[in-house]
This record gives sequence, structure tokens and C-alpha cells, in this order.
Amino acid sequence: MKQVYLNHAATSNHKFDATIKDLTNYLVANNNLNTNRGTQNMAELELIFEARQSLADFFRAPDPAHIIFTPNATTSLNMVLNGLLKTGDHVLTTAVEHNAVARPLYMLETEKNISVTRLCCEQNGCLDPSQIESLIRPETKVLIMTHASNVLGTILPVKECFKIAKEHGIITILDSAQTAGFLPIDMEELSIDVLAFTGHKGLMGLSGIGGFVLAQNIERLIDPWLSGGTGSASLALKQPDFLPDKFEPGTANMLGILSLKSAIQQIRAIGLKKIETHERTLTARFLAGVKEIPLNVLGTSDPAQSVPVVSITAPTIDSGELSQLLFERYQIITRSGLHCSPLAHQTAGTLKSGAVRFSFGWNTTIEEIDYTLNALGEIFSE
Amino acid sequence: MKQVYLNHAATSNHKFDATIKDLTNYLVANNNLNTNRGTQNMAELELIFEARQSLADFFRAPDPAHIIFTPNATTSLNMVLNGLLKTGDHVLTTAVEHNAVARPLYMLETEKNISVTRLCCEQNGCLDPSQIESLIRPETKVLIMTHASNVLGTILPVKECFKIAKEHGIITILDSAQTAGFLPIDMEELSIDVLAFTGHKGLMGLSGIGGFVLAQNIERLIDPWLSGGTGSASLALKQPDFLPDKFEPGTANMLGILSLKSAIQQIRAIGLKKIETHERTLTARFLAGVKEIPLNVLGTSDPAQSVPVVSITAPTIDSGELSQLLFERYQIITRSGLHCSPLAHQTAGTLKSGAVRFSFGWNTTIEEIDYTLNALGEIFSE
Repeated sequence: MKQVYLNHAATSNHKFDATIKDLTNYLVANNNLNTNRGTQNMAELELIFEARQSLADFFRAPDPAHIIFTPNATTSLNMVLNGLLKTGDHVLTTAVEHNAVARPLYMLETEKNISVTRLCCEQNGCLDPSQIESLIRPETKVLIMTHASNVLGTILPVKECFKIAKEHGIITILDSAQTAGFLPIDMEELSIDVLAFTGHKGLMGLSGIGGFVLAQNIERLIDPWLSGGTGSASLALKQPDFLPDKFEPGTANMLGILSLKSAIQQIRAIGLKKIETHERTLTARFLAGVKEIPLNVLGTSDPAQSVPVVSITAPTIDSGELSQLLFERYQIITRSGLHCSPLAHQTAGTLKSGAVRFSFGWNTTIEEIDYTLNALGEIFSE
Repeated sequence: MKQVYLNHAATSNHKFDATIKDLTNYLVANNNLNTNRGTQNMAELELIFEARQSLADFFRAPDPAHIIFTPNATTSLNMVLNGLLKTGDHVLTTAVEHNAVARPLYMLETEKNISVTRLCCEQNGCLDPSQIESLIRPETKVLIMTHASNVLGTILPVKECFKIAKEHGIITILDSAQTAGFLPIDMEELSIDVLAFTGHKGLMGLSGIGGFVLAQNIERLIDPWLSGGTGSASLALKQPDFLPDKFEPGTANMLGILSLKSAIQQIRAIGLKKIETHERTLTARFLAGVKEIPLNVLGTSDPAQSVPVVSITAPTIDSGELSQLLFERYQIITRSGLHCSPLAHQTAGTLKSGAVRFSFGWNTTIEEIDYTLNALGEIFSE
């Protein structure tokens, strides 16, 4: 058996063949590697516009100019949080956030005197939206949460939480790193003000491209945080206040943008529903198989309530060792440790042990699931 | 004649064939598009390390871990300036900076009460280092300057300026966007504390990758500004304080890093001296030819004191129109306007008119220079 890649929650390392073809064609031409500075590069400007258009359609954004490209979700979250929050503001967040949310908030707490309250999650990651109402203060400005935990797999009740937040005039920010390209995300239906995304996971693009999407008028509340040349309004030393330039200083990642445009076209051609069904089937099969082995499964064990992520701990073997054993003996790639999410591990009670995470993607096969279950069976019957 | 690309100061749009081959090979494998999260991806970790090593050798940095990858010079400059400067600090900079420096400084002036003094430049961009001494105040913390103006082409006396700064304990930051890959840059010889670079210009990599290089111990003075997951010290919500993780949260641009590693290998194989000589020859020929036409040349007209950038204004035709005419009638790509550098245009006295910029690269040929001179001759003899 060749290598089995079960680390899709980190990155979708096999991209669509059509995307690889688009990227290599672009590179091989080697005469078009221009950037959006100047007016004599229409092909590039068109490519960038089409990519924005395609993401705006995908997330039901108000306008292509409301798609802001950044290198990754981390940069998006830093830009938005720092652009929004002022000294004295209060932020609601959850007890299962990735460090891409938790670390910028910690920095704002310590340096800018922002206060942060974390919504409680059960040990399996489930969150009760009814707690929100009582935690809101007059100075509560933002509710920021992940769409699903990257450790527990549990999908959070974003729609319900954001509805409550909007009733109180609170700005809603979603980290879609674990769900974009798996679950449908409709900005309006979920009451999302700012949607942070990364290109290299479920969206099946390259690493180094991501961004955020802005609901109508929300951009007025976010100050620029990163500034520099935009090829526009160059006379002014102040960052321009129109979109997307307000948040896009510096030269963009053209190949990354092309990869996103191409991959989203593929995702739409396959259909998000089909991808979701395939990955849920894999997850259900893996969960059912794992139950036969004496392993502790983190998170909800209901595949209908989770993304294709299953983390486990074993009573008899350390997580790092188990991951290494799977790799060395079976060529199965997983990820062990804390997965950049100490809060989620704290919630699950696995801060000390860590866990081994298995995460599945569009090109994961049933055979790979069975092979992995068989490997685990062998290891734990020894 | 096919298209003539004379906008290398914006981006080197034709990359080395060997780099294109490296990138397409990597993509076509489509099984290796991993990221540096987790330990079961040695090939990727090696690639990143080799890229750091190669940049460390290129700039004579103290250690590969002192190479920090970011998406571009703009992000590097924002990170370093915001990480260094505190309320009340004073900064020295120049009157020819790109908006990648000028806009972040303006933002710090207005929001963080940093004061900024611009060193005077002559109309041609030349700067007299002897003015520095008298402008230093007790609270002067940083001298930040571009290595060469992206409009005037004029190379600034970085070595002399930074020597004076270091004698007064001032931190030196160089924006090498217009010089890396053309002039040799030795961190130690030029007394550079922080060197910001971009990958997609003279370094001949893709757009979307850049970074900064830190001299020994300077990292201790720079607070993290961007924070998030690093795949390290995950237990802590505080950004790690070791290099490079302190400044590299979020997922990196793997293909961009590969492009830089590959391109620098090519640059070393050709030899920087040979590149410099070729581009100076082109610039000298263009300058000599332009003198025969009634055009106003901005900046120093001595190719030995300039990067391969020549900006002009014409007495009889608007800059935007001239650029468009060159494009439509002769397929020559230039860039008109303010080039994201209102300060340089103010210095040159061309803030109202803008200019047409011709900038040359390694794959620009003598024939293209002559063709362009001929085109200008035709236009101005009409």
C-alpha cells in the first residue's frame, strides 16, 4: 500500500488534477507572472476579479470587492480583530478555538486591554447557544468562533449563536478553516459579518492564499491594520478606504489566487453536497470501526454533527508514539500533539496526553479507511 | 516584435526556466503539497530549511532561523515597524520611500504618536549622510530606508547612513525591494539590523513570498505583531519567542518558498556580478539613447549610481498617454503614474505629472532597449 494521507485538517495535500493543470499551464507560459500593479496586464486583473467573483458566489458575499485576499486565515483573523477592537471592548469566543483565534485575542487582552469571555463547551465540543444572552455586556463588540473544532470535529451552532449576537448589535466573525469546502456557508443565512477562510484545506487551493469576506457595510467599522502600496490613490499616505484596496496592501500571491479560482470551479462541478456525503461516509465508517477497538474518541461521535476529523487517545500508548507507529509501519500520515488548539484539548481533557488526529478529504478512499482500521486493530491486538 | 516587458521594478515576470521546471515538477507530483505542521513531512521541512539556508548565505545572515518568511516586503515592514516602535519613539527615514514604508509610518504617526523625520534628498534622489547626525534625538529608535528609489533609480548611501546610525545605537532597517538580486547585500558590511525583501522582483521568485532577515539578537527587541498557530509551543497562548516561529504564525506559501530557493540557486550559478553588469549595460544604453530625445530623465543619470530603473516625463505628452501609446503601438509594457511613491515624486517635482518608468531585468535584451529607443524616437519626431 502506498502512503495514506489522513491529515486533511492540516492541508489538502492532493489538489484537483484540473487545478494542477491550470497552475502548470500558467507557469509554463512563464510570460504572465505579472501582478496587479499597472494597467497593462489585463489578463492578471481579470484573473483576480474572476477569483473574487467565484468566491463571492461560493459564500454568497454581497460583492466581489468584499473578498479580501490574504496569505492565510491567521492573517485574516489578525487583521480583522486588530482593525475592529479598541481598548475596553469585550469579545465573546469559545472554549475550542484554534490558536489562530486564541493567540491574537490573548495578545489583545494583554496589550490593548480587551476583555475576552469564552463560551463553555461540553467535553465533546458541543456548545449551548442559550448561554450567550447572559454573557453579553454593554461593551461586547464581537463574537468570534470557529465553525468546527479542528481537534474534536464538532460543528458549532453558528447560526443560532450569530442570530443572538446580531439581535444585540454584536459583530460576528466566523473562522471557516475546517468547514469551507465541506459545509455550505451562506453569509446571509448564518448572519456572518466577517468570514475568514484559508485556501489550502477544504477549498483545495495552494498554501499561501486565504482571505476574508465582508458583509455589506461592515468594512466601515474595521480600520486598516496592515498598510502599504496598493497601486491606487498613491498620492495619499493614508491607506485608501475603498474595497478591496483598504485591506490589500503589497503584492498578491497570483498563483495562489489562480489555484483558488480553479479549485472552486472544480468543487462546484462536483457539488458540495457530494463532497459532504463522501466525507461523512468515510467518517462514519471510521468511527464505527474505531469503536471496536479500545480507544477513546474525542468529540461528538455523531458524524452528522462533525467535520471529517476524528481524534483519539489510547489507554496503552502515547499519542506521539502511536502516530509514529502508524507512519513507520503502515505509511499512514496522521497528526499527533495539540494541533495548535490547547483550548480544545483543555475542553476535551487531553491537554496532557494530546491525541492522534485522523482527518479525511475528498480523495480519501473507503479502502484507506479500512486499511487504517485494520492497522489500528493489529496494533491494539498485540 | 513580441511584447517588450519593461516593468521589472514591479515584478520580474519571466522567471528562470529552471525555476519553472522545479515548480511544475513539484506540482505535477501533486502528492507533496504539504505544510510544515506535523512531523511526518520531512521533505517539506527540508525544503523550507534549505530555502532559509540559501537566503542566509545570500544575505550573509547569522543563521537560517533568522530568515523569516512573509508574503511580501510590505508585510515584513509592517511587522517590524509595529513590533519595534512604541509611543514616543522617533524614526528617521528618507524623502524617497515607497508607500510600503511611508504608509505604515504614517499610520504609526497618527495612531501611536510616533514621530517621523525624513532625510532630505536632492531632486535626483541623492542623499547626504552628513545630515543624519544633527537629526538624531534621544528618542530616535530606528533609521529605515530603501536601498534605491523605485522611481528615480538612485541608490542611497546605505553603508554610510547605517554606520552613523549604529554609532548612536539606532536600529537600521533596509527595504531591499529594488536591489536584492541586483546589488550584493551583506548584512554585516552594511550594518543592517533588519533586511526586508520581496521574492518576486530581482530575486526572481513567485509573487506572494518575501520576508525579512534579522541580525544577531535584534529579534529580542521586536515584539510579535501577527500571532497564531505555529505548530510549536502549542500549549501557550503567547506567541513563542524563538526564531523563526516568533514571526511565522499561520500556514506558509510552500510553492513561493520553493521558487525562492530555486531562483537563488540560479542567481548564484550566473553570478550576481554578471547580472549587475548586464542590467547596468542596458540602463546605460537606454540613458544614452534617451538623451538624444527631448525627454526629462528623473533621478541620477549615472548608471553606476542607479538600479535598472529610468523614469521620464515628456514636455509634450502626458505620462499616462505616453505609456499607453508605447503599449498599443509598440507592445512595450512600462508603468506610468506615481508608482506607489508619492514621496519620491515630490522629491523629483513630478507629483502632478507622474512619470513613465522603464525598468530592466536579467532577461531584458539590448535589442529590446534599441527597439524602445526607436519607438520613443518615432513618437517624439512626429
